[in-house]
Amino acid sequence: MSKYAVIIVAGGTGSRMKSEGPKQFALLHDKPVIVYAIEKFLQFDPNIDIVVALRPEYAMEFETISKNFKLPSLTLVNGGDTRFHSVKNALEKIKPASELIAVHDAARPLVSLQTIQNTFSAAEKSGAAIPVVEITESLREIDSLGSRAVNRKDYRIVQTPQCFKTAILQEAYKQNYVPEFTDDATVVEAAANKIYLVPGNAENIKITYPHDLLLAASLLND
Amino acid sequence: MSKYAVIIVAGGTGSRMKSEGPKQFALLHDKPVIVYAIEKFLQFDPNIDIVVALRPEYAMEFETISKNFKLPSLTLVNGGDTRFHSVKNALEKIKPASELIAVHDAARPLVSLQTIQNTFSAAEKSGAAIPVVEITESLREIDSLGSRAVNRKDYRIVQTPQCFKTAILQEAYKQNYVPEFTDDATVVEAAANKIYLVPGNAENIKITYPHDLLLAASLLND
Repeated sequence: MSKYAVIIVAGGTGSRMKSEGPKQFALLHDKPVIVYAIEKFLQFDPNIDIVVALRPEYAMEFETISKNFKLPSLTLVNGGDTRFHSVKNALEKIKPASELIAVHDAARPLVSLQTIQNTFSAAEKSGAAIPVVEITESLREIDSLGSRAVNRKDYRIVQTPQCFKTAILQEAYKQNYVPEFTDDATVVEAAANKIYLVPGNAENIKITYPHDLLLAASLLND
Repeated sequence: MSKYAVIIVAGGTGSRMKSEGPKQFALLHDKPVIVYAIEKFLQFDPNIDIVVALRPEYAMEFETISKNFKLPSLTLVNGGDTRFHSVKNALEKIKPASELIAVHDAARPLVSLQTIQNTFSAAEKSGAAIPVVEITESLREIDSLGSRAVNRKDYRIVQTPQCFKTAILQEAYKQNYVPEFTDDATVVEAAANKIYLVPGNAENIKITYPHDLLLAASLLND
């Protein structure tokens, strides 16, 4: 029994990946993107409790992938219409022994072991921790009147895994859904918890567009 | 005589590129990054007035590159300690016939012809225009007390070329320098001008870290 669990959120339908299908199944050096993420958490803890939230129409494809890449037994749950609902469904299937839960995007294959370790470790101390990276380009805020420059040093790009003490995450997901819940940190924050920031790894990009897949392949070669 | 001018800002010393030297001279498929940017503006207008702002210690290297890649005659000026001072120096060497000026990062080799056309065209109508792209990841604002989620839909990543009517840009650069002047839009905005936003191209990334060079190479293959 491990005290760690990870929810792998694979809600995507690939609408931004053109004809290439859902991004979490795209091949990166002959291995689907989602397999990299799962393998990295297994490297962190071979006994980690893994729950994958996936749209039902992709369940069979995932089972085939799981078999081909010899993934250990894991729990599959229906992905909801939003990330919030996917995570809520997954939380019902987490093993009771899990004290700490990571929520990770299936489309982030290049998360480093150190990012996983640091984020879990900070969550164990503080209750809620997420990896972030700095922004290297200029940023503007827009509104109905136009736009204004903001200082990019005051902002951070949020990555996953977002890690929480199980009790905190479960309590936070009892809230009613609002569209502002775009990641787990916003849900947990809305339940009056403070979010601790840890440095992510720059390569931990989210595969959104086809060119992100090219970058990920280059980073794997590097 | 063209009514267009472009200032290519190549101030970098490569401190974030490890031992690989300044990013604007890094090789992308055997051609230095800066050459791509210059060639794209020549494709837009073969007679465009080109001024390159470069640290003096790199002038000889650039002259060699310029000869090897058969670049047309262009003006070289000393890059200052900041982007503001580089552009200010360059503005003194712009030909009087130039009615519209683009300021472009030498480290953005993948700007599209359409981004150049759209931005110049919007600047001709409105006085000041910059290309921007949406943010695909969650964003947080940080302060001394911690951090809070912000809506990424309210923000845009700023690219170059930033395009202006010559008179507006020259007037704006008469202001005294403040550290908030991180790009030309902030300078022009501080002189009470409105900045018009146009869609940039997603591939128009800034080469900052070595892995950006890998992505750029992949995008060129695509």
